[in-house]
Amino acid sequence: MKEKIEQLIAQSREFLKEEQIVTDKEGMSHYCYDATEMRFMPDVVFLPYSTEEVSKIMKLAYSHDIPLTPQGGRTGLSGGALPVDGGVILSLLRMNKILEIDEKNMQVVIEPGVVSADLQETLKKYNLFFPPDPSSTIESTLGGNVAENAGYTRAVKYGVTRDYIIGLEAVLPNGDVINVGGRTVKNVTGYDLVALLIGSEGTLAVVTKIIAKLLPKPVLRRTCIFYLDDLVAAADLVVSVFGSGIIPCAIEFMDNTSINCVADYLSAELRRDAAAMVLIEVDGSNQSAVDEEVRLVMETAGKAKGVTESKLAASDEEADRLWRIRRETLPALKALGKDHLEADVVVPRYQLPLLARSIQESGVGKKVNIATYGHSGDGNLHVTIQYRKRNFAETEEAYELLGDIYRRTIAMGGKLTGEHGVGLTAKNYMSIQMGPTEIALMKRIKQAFDPKGLLNPKKIFPDEGQEETA
Amino acid sequence: MKEKIEQLIAQSREFLKEEQIVTDKEGMSHYCYDATEMRFMPDVVFLPYSTEEVSKIMKLAYSHDIPLTPQGGRTGLSGGALPVDGGVILSLLRMNKILEIDEKNMQVVIEPGVVSADLQETLKKYNLFFPPDPSSTIESTLGGNVAENAGYTRAVKYGVTRDYIIGLEAVLPNGDVINVGGRTVKNVTGYDLVALLIGSEGTLAVVTKIIAKLLPKPVLRRTCIFYLDDLVAAADLVVSVFGSGIIPCAIEFMDNTSINCVADYLSAELRRDAAAMVLIEVDGSNQSAVDEEVRLVMETAGKAKGVTESKLAASDEEADRLWRIRRETLPALKALGKDHLEADVVVPRYQLPLLARSIQESGVGKKVNIATYGHSGDGNLHVTIQYRKRNFAETEEAYELLGDIYRRTIAMGGKLTGEHGVGLTAKNYMSIQMGPTEIALMKRIKQAFDPKGLLNPKKIFPDEGQEETA
Repeated sequence: MKEKIEQLIAQSREFLKEEQIVTDKEGMSHYCYDATEMRFMPDVVFLPYSTEEVSKIMKLAYSHDIPLTPQGGRTGLSGGALPVDGGVILSLLRMNKILEIDEKNMQVVIEPGVVSADLQETLKKYNLFFPPDPSSTIESTLGGNVAENAGYTRAVKYGVTRDYIIGLEAVLPNGDVINVGGRTVKNVTGYDLVALLIGSEGTLAVVTKIIAKLLPKPVLRRTCIFYLDDLVAAADLVVSVFGSGIIPCAIEFMDNTSINCVADYLSAELRRDAAAMVLIEVDGSNQSAVDEEVRLVMETAGKAKGVTESKLAASDEEADRLWRIRRETLPALKALGKDHLEADVVVPRYQLPLLARSIQESGVGKKVNIATYGHSGDGNLHVTIQYRKRNFAETEEAYELLGDIYRRTIAMGGKLTGEHGVGLTAKNYMSIQMGPTEIALMKRIKQAFDPKGLLNPKKIFPDEGQEETA
Repeated sequence: MKEKIEQLIAQSREFLKEEQIVTDKEGMSHYCYDATEMRFMPDVVFLPYSTEEVSKIMKLAYSHDIPLTPQGGRTGLSGGALPVDGGVILSLLRMNKILEIDEKNMQVVIEPGVVSADLQETLKKYNLFFPPDPSSTIESTLGGNVAENAGYTRAVKYGVTRDYIIGLEAVLPNGDVINVGGRTVKNVTGYDLVALLIGSEGTLAVVTKIIAKLLPKPVLRRTCIFYLDDLVAAADLVVSVFGSGIIPCAIEFMDNTSINCVADYLSAELRRDAAAMVLIEVDGSNQSAVDEEVRLVMETAGKAKGVTESKLAASDEEADRLWRIRRETLPALKALGKDHLEADVVVPRYQLPLLARSIQESGVGKKVNIATYGHSGDGNLHVTIQYRKRNFAETEEAYELLGDIYRRTIAMGGKLTGEHGVGLTAKNYMSIQMGPTEIALMKRIKQAFDPKGLLNPKKIFPDEGQEETA
């Protein structure tokens, strides 16, 4: 391997500048981690500026049988961008140009290294709106969001990343460039390779250009907060809101542990005794429509079982404060300084509070802590298990609990991951959800793109002999 | 082949009743055509009632190397359900049960033979709404709509079939049953095989169960009709409407030929001198919001260049009459009694009227007639070329024109088909749109599902030596 890497680096110097090739340990250490806090060192990091450079690097690595892992903003929560087998990290951070904003067709063409927040900021000037905007917006890149099919709080009304991507340029493991989809919002010409690449976690091809459709920007929003004395009552609250004919743009959920943790972290005045907190936002461009929707939400919640306090944010500033509570939940949990495992399970919407309660019950009497919070409108529950890695019993307990959470989720008709991806963290639980026929079929699709198995290896598919089962 | 078919039929009698096996020519003639009016006779038609029967039939056909073509309501416009190589037709018409309506999670579970209109009618009782509802609603089946990723007039606001399907049960060519996706609205566990199967035109697997998400039913709608004296002005009208911040649920377009043809067919009073007609509908559940939106649409159109007449339907009945004009366009064109070729091209939204003009120009001085109409909000233009098959010169001209239309479309950044599928009618034009790398990749995906190439053969991919090129 070492010799092949040296050859690869020597050959890459023929078309890359020295500043695009990182080989020193300190330099490479900036690319070896993500938000999981796992670390894997590569042998070399390349920083291409163009599709042509990406293609040349991939062709070279392929010819030397060297594994290659594409990487964006390293905000992933499943380890999808980590070079498990070493080899090449292909960082797309320098391909960060917004290439075209087509106002007439409400489309944007961007490179994969564009940071989400930068795109949002730019589009504001045009009164245009790219709805997907994950919590990691100030660091995560669009390429990463496409690779993971990122979700976000507004997915309940506006859908996820996949719903906005209409065309991709991508490079296959052997260096061939493909163009799939394009500038049309509808397209049924052949298999939908755009949809297949989105959420494929960088294991099929490296995306080098993204065409997204946009919406007119909704200019108004109203945010409400509800406290409940019964966790499971949140299920009926959510169903009642939809039953009133409204599609809120966000319905978020936090359990008692999450509420208290954020209250400490932000020194915020929250109802610390509440079993659950639900945040609901409606948006639109028409004042009377938005007013009517928020009135209906408040009225519905007023009648709902278990709601002990309702509050409507009086201003956008107050709404921002409420959203800060939700957004800072994971940072607050992390700030406790413990090690943590994250699950990103998803169930049918109504089942989310039931799953949260079931997870709480499974944690009773255990030494590790569990907090749940997430996207109630989508049934997508984030679970943080806090433990100490150096304590053997806690570590055992934490992993036992994680497997247990996945099994409870699947038993409720759910899935392992709603928006974070399988990556490394969930791969050995895949057989709990999927049968061998489905996994074998996915492997054949992987092979159709990557016959040598060199692109982002050891992700998604369970390690042989390591699978947990139902 | 004949001997193998006889063996297959004999073996199928072990688990199917006689009424599920059609082998007489007259009986089979009901399954040999679709809306393209092409005809291909099968060797046998099977009518399974269950996934188990589908699996057994497919396993048998696979073991005998007999081609098998799945089929729904035979309303397809690209020949996707026709048994080009004979063999088995697997008609899903008897798997027509709505298995479950989950009101709390706003989901429905159905068999593939359910007719679109029946699903719509059933959901009304629950105040629920499955937006995709193609023009062929009274005959087309959900299985067919999934296979073709069917569009419809409201796709501009609500998206296409793919946007609502969250889970599928399907049978692979060898008879293996797979379950992909499920009951959750979000899911990023492994590759998105749901999205890949949708729009794969029955060439990868046979769908036997469909899980769809639903929306609360919007209860209000307002419809406006606009006549224009300039075809291309329609482009700016559509852009202005979006620019006002509104997302109408439908924006439809008809050219002068289409207007006159429908006016004759329905004896309707339409502006026969108009260069184009645009139909815009807004919907919602809030009276003042819908009123405000329609006011803005009328105001925007009032200022738009080229608009000679605007009219707002005063009642739902009047709106229905307007929609009938649009819906009866293809039947009206067919009723002229000529042979016809259909194209279903799609371009970036703003380009649609420009493409319509370009197509008109290419028809000048030709003997064949061309009519264009379609989904302006999606950039999806339907083109009907009328000619007489028995007239050699007209036939030559018609096909020459069809190739020309595809080339003009691709040159404008468009795609061969927006909602009808490639099937037989567009397959030999694929190389105009796609490079050999993309086509080869799609073939490898086909192989990952169907290594023997027996499922719905000779669709999508160009026949060797028959490809038209750019």
